[in-house]
Order: sequence, then structure tokens, then C-alpha cells
Amino acid sequence: MSRTKKDDKPAGWRKAEIIEAAAQCFMERGYHATTVDDVATRLNATKGRIYHHYATKTDLFFDVHRTGMDRLFSAIRPVHDRGGPARERLVAMLLAHARAMLEHHTYETVVAQGVQVHRFDQTTEGQRQTMRDLIATRDTLEQLFKSTLEDAIAEGTLAARDVSIAVKVLLGGLQWSIFWYRPQPGETEADRVALAEKMVAPLVAGLRAAD
Amino acid sequence: MSRTKKDDKPAGWRKAEIIEAAAQCFMERGYHATTVDDVATRLNATKGRIYHHYATKTDLFFDVHRTGMDRLFSAIRPVHDRGGPARERLVAMLLAHARAMLEHHTYETVVAQGVQVHRFDQTTEGQRQTMRDLIATRDTLEQLFKSTLEDAIAEGTLAARDVSIAVKVLLGGLQWSIFWYRPQPGETEADRVALAEKMVAPLVAGLRAAD
Repeated sequence: MSRTKKDDKPAGWRKAEIIEAAAQCFMERGYHATTVDDVATRLNATKGRIYHHYATKTDLFFDVHRTGMDRLFSAIRPVHDRGGPARERLVAMLLAHARAMLEHHTYETVVAQGVQVHRFDQTTEGQRQTMRDLIATRDTLEQLFKSTLEDAIAEGTLAARDVSIAVKVLLGGLQWSIFWYRPQPGETEADRVALAEKMVAPLVAGLRAAD
Repeated sequence: MSRTKKDDKPAGWRKAEIIEAAAQCFMERGYHATTVDDVATRLNATKGRIYHHYATKTDLFFDVHRTGMDRLFSAIRPVHDRGGPARERLVAMLLAHARAMLEHHTYETVVAQGVQVHRFDQTTEGQRQTMRDLIATRDTLEQLFKSTLEDAIAEGTLAARDVSIAVKVLLGGLQWSIFWYRPQPGETEADRVALAEKMVAPLVAGLRAAD
């Protein structure tokens, strides 16, 4: 009966379930140690159900990676597109990025593993193309920050600097949270906002006597 | 003849060779995909030579991890101990940290993998103790920065803030370089210093109109 119900779910929903379970597995055990069996076990499903959607573990990994990138984009792009003074926009974008890193911690941890998969694995041409697309997406995300930094320099609210390195360091400072942050039981949205503000504060203030 | 020469080397030197080769392997392929055979092949040696020093791959990994932490410490502690105004010391410590991250890129990439090994692997009690020691070392390193931030706040040259989160974000901004930095052929010490300065600049200046 419950099985029949499950089969009634739209295909997209079932795929989202697989991606969610895979994200958990990859985060906990890493790309290499995770098997399709692990993901199936977590879903209480058969391997066949996963192979129906994904030819290999690597393809499944890429979909988790893509989901993680999409969630960052969805958090940051609207703030970027809102317009207004560039420096204020930049602060709001950093805050949105920090919040997204915390809220989607599982996925963003897997995104960081993606660099390693790229380095380590023998992949097919199709998979290499997917990897290039994912890297292009990451570059586009960085570009949103770079152009906003350039706008702030042009409007005179930010000192001139190496914009490319600055973006890598600012985003890296927030992204490093994959190594030290762990969602706490009972943690609320307000808790994550408060933590995100503490993370962004030193980047905005710099090493100054007054914020 | 060259083999005899090699055998004449002090035991410590041979161990350092193994650690160096292992660091390269772990960086390139990751902890899970690297085998003791890979390390032996890179050394043009037998597995036996490695097992003479290390009972398992995990123990070898820990020595690479420890070496990476030691190198960070050796770079930062003297700057910390030099004394003087806390804010200037903090800037110098960040610069030393950035330089060490670039110079010891291979080892520091493996240090970051250490978090994952801790998460993923079934380890022995002895290995868990080693892991606790390594985590304690990392905490001590962070403590050098925390106490210097607190000194700068006390001397009035730094606005009060959450020191613990600030240190994680500042160091994370520099440590994220393991994901984007790759040593370039012909790169000099001066090149690395120039890059380290560009990395530290946005952390020191914050999002301000003038540096």
C-alpha cells in the first residue's frame, strides 16, 4: 500500500529524494567511500531505483554538486540583482552567502569535495563536460561578487584592490564553515542568521578600532 | 652503489622522504584512493620500506598531517612571540599564515583532508588518540590568533567582536587557498609573498573606502 503510494509520486520528487540521501552519504563518508548501496540503504530502497535515474555514482555526485551550486545561486542572485549602492549590496550578498552555507551545509560540503573528484577520478567525456559546466557556474557566482566589488571601488566606497583574490578570500572565509560548522539539534533560522552575521562582521569591519 | 648510499642515510631522513612522497599522493588522489603501493611507487621503493616505519596507511597519513601542522606552527609562533602592538602582530601572523599555506600547499591540503578521515574512518584507539592530539594542536594554533585578537581589542586597536568566529573566518579565508592555489612552475618566494599580501589585504582593510 505505502509502496503504491510511493510509486504515485512524480518522478522529480523521487529524484529529489535520491539526491538528498546521496548528499547525506557523501558528506558523512566522502565521495570515494560512498557506494550506491549506501545511498539505497539510506533510502530503504533498491539499488535499481537509483540506477533507474543515475548510470553511475559519479553522475549522482554531480547532481548533488549541481543542487548545492543552485542553492547558493538562488540565495545570492536576487540580492545581487536588487541594485542600490554597491558596498551595501556586497555586505548583503556576503550575508546571503553565509546563510546559504549554513542552511545547505550538507550540499556545500559535497560541492567542496567536487574539486577533489575532479582531481582524482578517471571520468568519461560526458562527466568532464558536466564538471566544466559546474566550474563555469562557480565562476559565474564569483563574478557576481567581483563585479559588485568593482562597482564599490568605482563608487568610491571601497579601496582599490586585487578583486579576484579578494573575492576568493572573502568567500573562502565563509565557505570554510564546512569544516567547523555542524547543524545543532533545535537550531532555528534565527540562530543561523545570528551566526552568519558574526561570520560576515570581521570581513566587513577588517582589523579596525571601530566597526 | 646508489642503493648503499641510500641505506647510509640516517633513519630520520628516510622517514622524511616517505612523508614527502605520501603528502604528494594524498594531495593528488585523496586519502581513500591512495594506497601504500602508490607511495612506494612514487619513492621507487618497496612497500616493505614503508611498512618498516608505518603499520598502516592511516598512521602514515597522520604523520603527514602532523608535519603540516608543525610547519604552520613554525611559521606563526615566532611572529606571535615577537610581542609588540597586538594589531600589528595580528597582521604579521596572518601574513605568515598565508605564506605558510602557499609554501606548504601540499601538506596543508592533506591537513584539511584530516577532518574527513576523522569523520569517515573506523580507527583504532591509538589512532583516535593521535587524531585528538592533532585537533588539540589545531586548537592551540587558533588560540594564538584568538589571544592576539583579544589583546588588540583590549589595547583599543580592534573593535570588540566574537573572537572565536572571527578567527575561524579569517584563517578560513587564507586556508581556502588549498582549493584555488596551485604552485606555478618557476614561482619564487617573492611571488608567494606578493600573493600572500594580496590575500591578507582584504581581511585587514575590510570593506572600506581607504586601506
